[in-house]
Parts: sequence; structure tokens; C-alpha cells
Amino acid sequence: MRILGIDPGLRAMGWGVIESSGSRLSHVANGVCQSDGDDLGERLLSLHNQLSEIILAYSPDQAAIEQTFVNKDGAGTLKLGQARGVALLTLARAGLPVGEYAPNRVKKTVVGVGHAEKEQVQHMVKLQLPGCRPKNADAADALAIAICHAFYGNAPTSRMREVGT
Amino acid sequence: MRILGIDPGLRAMGWGVIESSGSRLSHVANGVCQSDGDDLGERLLSLHNQLSEIILAYSPDQAAIEQTFVNKDGAGTLKLGQARGVALLTLARAGLPVGEYAPNRVKKTVVGVGHAEKEQVQHMVKLQLPGCRPKNADAADALAIAICHAFYGNAPTSRMREVGT
Repeated sequence: MRILGIDPGLRAMGWGVIESSGSRLSHVANGVCQSDGDDLGERLLSLHNQLSEIILAYSPDQAAIEQTFVNKDGAGTLKLGQARGVALLTLARAGLPVGEYAPNRVKKTVVGVGHAEKEQVQHMVKLQLPGCRPKNADAADALAIAICHAFYGNAPTSRMREVGT
Repeated sequence: MRILGIDPGLRAMGWGVIESSGSRLSHVANGVCQSDGDDLGERLLSLHNQLSEIILAYSPDQAAIEQTFVNKDGAGTLKLGQARGVALLTLARAGLPVGEYAPNRVKKTVVGVGHAEKEQVQHMVKLQLPGCRPKNADAADALAIAICHAFYGNAPTSRMREVGT
């Protein structure tokens, strides 16, 4: 099963594709979509177009996305929400089942503890996906989300529900 | 010039189309997109599909959307952000220039004061668009946003910036 993981963000959206066969995982590709454009609509469109091309290029069977952490920064939550809405729409248009995972659950799955540092996540992603060189921390997070889905998202015929908080 | 106004929301997204010719305004159509589906991705996709059909059916030249009011309810802001992101993406995919207007500016334009009640907005929308019967308060808000754009968005070749707060 091929899984596309997404770490949503308006400025930069990390993505990573892995192949999961039983308990074996392998790296396929990873990267970061940078949004460009003069206004919000154009930026969202550029994210949508890049994500659509990634889906076309790597033909994932399922997708996984980080559950957004709602904090006290309302403007930040709104920006992230808009980017996340576009990511979810793009996955839905492609007919992909989507698993949603809380950041703590992702870290606990990949690193073993819920409050790991970014460097630790990158390190463990490289260990679990031999030969993988994440482009940056956003791409590493996206690969970690895909790894999390490989462990929890074993119901290919239905859309996944949120797992953990 | 034909203007599509959008009042974004995840559960229900109001829309209204008006025709603006000089200082004359006329009503074309209005309604509400209800999101349906079992999960967030499906709901966003249903909003995207309905909005795409409205654009196809009424061929607006420009669009206007309410600037989202960020409040202390982080979960509500996130939901609204996701729906708003999908609306902005749908408008950008259709190549429509989009004006963004703060709720107070919309009310001040349509009613004359920035803190009008919903009933007052509905009343003034009906007065300014003879023969118009807004489907509900969301549709009336969307028409009010389109009216606001008819007054402020007189630069058809460029995307509009936010006006007022």
C-alpha cells in the first residue's frame, strides 16, 4: 500500500510518500510545496496544483494528514485552516481515503514519546525509511504522518477516523 | 458586471449573484450550499462541487467574500478557515478576481451602520435588489457582500485587496 503523508501549512506544505508492505516500510519520495502568488486565492491554488501533481506522479492508495493543533493564535489557526481545507479537498477530489492523526500520536508512533523534538523525528524517520533524506523538517513530519498511517490505517475500504489526541 | 458574493461556512455557505451596471444593481440568483458527507474531506468536496456548478451556471465576472472574523473559539475558526480555503480555491480555479470585505464594512455599506442586525441586512438587501427574496440569512449576507463589492471593487483587471476592517 502506498501512503501519502501531508503536514499542512499555508507557506509550506510538507509531503512524503512511503510504501507499506506488512510491517515493512520503504521510502518513495518527499518534498515541500511552497505557496506562491500575490494573494491568498493564488497561494491556495498553487498548493492545490502542486499537491495534485504529486498525487498524479506517485499514485498513492491512501493519505494521512496531521490533525491541526488549535492554539490561541486565531489568525494563525485561520491560515492553517485554509491551507488544510485545500489539502483535504485535493485528497477528496482524488478519491483518497484520509487518516487524521494528532501530532502527539504521530510522535509517539515514530519516536516512542509524544513530545519529541523535530530533530528526533527526522532521525527516526531516516532510521525507519532506509536511504531516505527528508528535504526539511516539514517533509520529515509528513513522512512521520505516513508512517503513523501505515501502523494505524489498516482499513483500506473506509475513510479513517481521527486516532488519538 | 456580474458579481458572486460568498458568505463562507462549513455547514452552510451562502451565495448570491447580482448584476451591477453603473450605480444600478439587480438580483440574479441566491441560495445556500449545504455541505454533506461522512467526513470533512467529503463535506469540503461537496461545497467545492456546488460552488463550481454555481460559477458555471451564472458566469460571474468577479467574486467577493466575507473576511473571516477571528474569535476565541479556535475550533470554530479552524472549521470556518477550512471552508473559506475551499471557497477561495474554487474562485481562484475559475480565474475570478476576488474582493475581501470585513463584516462591518459590508453592513456599513448595505445598512449604513457597522453593527446591524441580520434582519436589517435582509431588509436592506431586498430594498436594494428589487424582487429579490433571499433564501435565508446566509444568502442575504452573501448578496450584501456582492453589493459591497459593486461599490468598492471597481478595478476589474486586478484582484482586490481587503477593504476596511
